[in-house]
Amino acid sequence: MDAVTVIRDKRDGLRLTDEQIQWFVGRYAEGDVVADEQAAALAMAIFFNGMESSELDAWTRAMVDTGQTLDLTEVGRPTVDKHSTGGVGDKVSLVLVPMVAACGAAVPQLSGRGLGHTGGTLDKMEAIPGWTSKLEPEAMIRILREVGGVIAGASADLAPADQRLYALRDVTSTVDSIPLIASSIMSKKIAEGTDALVLDVKVGSGAFLPELDRARELAATMVGIGERNGVRTVALLTAMETVLGRAVGNALEVSEALEVLDGGGPPDLVEVTVALAREMVSLAGLHVDPADVLSSGRAREVWNAMVRAQGGDPLASLAKAPHSEIIRAEATGVLTRVDCRSVGIAAWRLGAGRERKEDSVSASAGVICLAKPGELVKVGDPILELHTEDDSRFYAAKAALTRAITVADEMPSPTPLVIDRVD
Amino acid sequence: MDAVTVIRDKRDGLRLTDEQIQWFVGRYAEGDVVADEQAAALAMAIFFNGMESSELDAWTRAMVDTGQTLDLTEVGRPTVDKHSTGGVGDKVSLVLVPMVAACGAAVPQLSGRGLGHTGGTLDKMEAIPGWTSKLEPEAMIRILREVGGVIAGASADLAPADQRLYALRDVTSTVDSIPLIASSIMSKKIAEGTDALVLDVKVGSGAFLPELDRARELAATMVGIGERNGVRTVALLTAMETVLGRAVGNALEVSEALEVLDGGGPPDLVEVTVALAREMVSLAGLHVDPADVLSSGRAREVWNAMVRAQGGDPLASLAKAPHSEIIRAEATGVLTRVDCRSVGIAAWRLGAGRERKEDSVSASAGVICLAKPGELVKVGDPILELHTEDDSRFYAAKAALTRAITVADEMPSPTPLVIDRVD
Repeated sequence: MDAVTVIRDKRDGLRLTDEQIQWFVGRYAEGDVVADEQAAALAMAIFFNGMESSELDAWTRAMVDTGQTLDLTEVGRPTVDKHSTGGVGDKVSLVLVPMVAACGAAVPQLSGRGLGHTGGTLDKMEAIPGWTSKLEPEAMIRILREVGGVIAGASADLAPADQRLYALRDVTSTVDSIPLIASSIMSKKIAEGTDALVLDVKVGSGAFLPELDRARELAATMVGIGERNGVRTVALLTAMETVLGRAVGNALEVSEALEVLDGGGPPDLVEVTVALAREMVSLAGLHVDPADVLSSGRAREVWNAMVRAQGGDPLASLAKAPHSEIIRAEATGVLTRVDCRSVGIAAWRLGAGRERKEDSVSASAGVICLAKPGELVKVGDPILELHTEDDSRFYAAKAALTRAITVADEMPSPTPLVIDRVD
Repeated sequence: MDAVTVIRDKRDGLRLTDEQIQWFVGRYAEGDVVADEQAAALAMAIFFNGMESSELDAWTRAMVDTGQTLDLTEVGRPTVDKHSTGGVGDKVSLVLVPMVAACGAAVPQLSGRGLGHTGGTLDKMEAIPGWTSKLEPEAMIRILREVGGVIAGASADLAPADQRLYALRDVTSTVDSIPLIASSIMSKKIAEGTDALVLDVKVGSGAFLPELDRARELAATMVGIGERNGVRTVALLTAMETVLGRAVGNALEVSEALEVLDGGGPPDLVEVTVALAREMVSLAGLHVDPADVLSSGRAREVWNAMVRAQGGDPLASLAKAPHSEIIRAEATGVLTRVDCRSVGIAAWRLGAGRERKEDSVSASAGVICLAKPGELVKVGDPILELHTEDDSRFYAAKAALTRAITVADEMPSPTPLVIDRVD
């Protein structure tokens, strides 16, 4: 077996054998026989020639096999997780995990940090004083059993080949390949040991894959890998044309998640979260309506227990930025567009996100959408509120927002938040 | 400028700008900003999406600009070089360089060593006792002025980006891309400073690109790059279905080249060499027939002077292998096929070639074709004579020759040696 032949076969459109895939991925993870440049060439060949579903299963399984697999049988509850392809203002996990746990399932949410204009769930949770993402597997299983929900950093022992390959794809323009995205996500979820999984695949201008047909293809690919590997999987395609809810930024998003857990919060965020929760509860085989759990206050109770179990104080006040500025409407009419990606970039530039992996983030920085598309506005009405710890950052943040806001004469046609379901 | 964007643009089928190409190739040659994995990903994207001729010119020029360019104006003769895409038994340069020099041109033949089943011109020349491939640029120019021909190793200062990229392409299955092959060859020839160039593009089962249309495309691509970069360039497409001449192996090929320089030798080798020489002499603007120079003995005189100028003894006897074996015909009829690649592999296994760059080669090992396709043979007639210094090598060499020889009832239809001309 040699890397040059594996690359050439894929380059020439052949189906790789299971043995070739196991060998290549395994030797790459070990870090000596297969070099970065060979993995980069293979990733680009996969970008062009794709993978059949049987290759994809072997590829995903090979990535899982490079590390540990968690055994969640001792949790004593049905396990179900959620993965989102990422959006701006996407604080869904913060609400969803305690909500589904309050319904009786266990949610082992292993998350990452943000990079670029989309935030990371761990960065958001770290805005809570005292909270830590670091949990040993034993502590995680204990919290899942007792509280039902955990949000933690994925261990480096889960699918380490994927971690190495993802970093490589990032610098070689081989990220946006559906088989590579799907196998990357699913390898971590399979290694995590969850029984079931709901995927939130974002569609629209703020999403990683803006076009509906590509998003649908990604959803179907991931559902296929999950089902063929013993993880019951359902995907929802949800809209990401504008910010989900109103808040973008770490502490700002935690506050908004708490509003939802307390029975309020923006309706779009509530709608998407409840839709995902219903899928999760159903996959877990439970017969409880998550909306009831939310209005009863039980989801908030689980949140408090979850935060305490990871060292945080659920009642502590959150960081507040010392500087703020308002962006106002320049016309009177209907607000038809507040561009998602621009708001994400502005929040990042205000300090909420990081440019390099080793950068730290500001807890308090971010953007609040004071008005959302579909609302009527007058010239001078406040649209966006910018928060930062460092007022020299306003200039670059505002530059990202030039042409981000559209005010028109006619009401836009309403678009559904939950666009489709793939199972 | 960043590598990720350059790779993505090519991946997405955009035309790279001249600035992008200069930046990427230049930074890659410097070895820090652009990493091997990024160059591998770009090479694979070029494999799939190709390069337009203007991109190809910028790419070739960028590779030339990473190193020195030789100035041959002091040579005082028109300069013209030859490049072959490589074949088995291809000792054409050994005859061609002194022949064209004897016509009045200067031939700055910068060559490489062999790897795998095709031999390298430097390995062949080093079978001559005392001869060295190492020449300082000043010595090279002096010999070109006084003798007219030089065969030397290409300096590491000529197009160093190409050297680094070629080694990378070799391990990432991105060698057989026409734009990458063409720019690799032409960057070295442009850096070498020759006024004109004749390309010998081999076609057939023993060639790097066996199919005629691909070989023609490579020829046209290289001729285009040469002409647009001030090097007058012509390509001949020549047959490589069987060994050129009868000898394969370093000293064996030198002996055969000497037969031609002395007015004899195999007619196919003479025909191809004279055809290439006529193109070179014509590009050099000279009005001499190389065939006359050959029969007059003047080409042999130039050979003797060339060899002496590089420390060799043109009259010394060459190494002779202590062991030989004969492969005989297993049927009576017409010999229709002696497979080129198999003979090349056999010679390599007998010691004439190397597996890794750092291996040394045997001067005396190789194969002599005692019969050539088109000749009548009887059962038991000798077809191939195997030579080696180490008789334990016969087994593996003979294994390469199983099914390499075909004897049939009918004479094969004759195929031309010079198939086409591209200018």
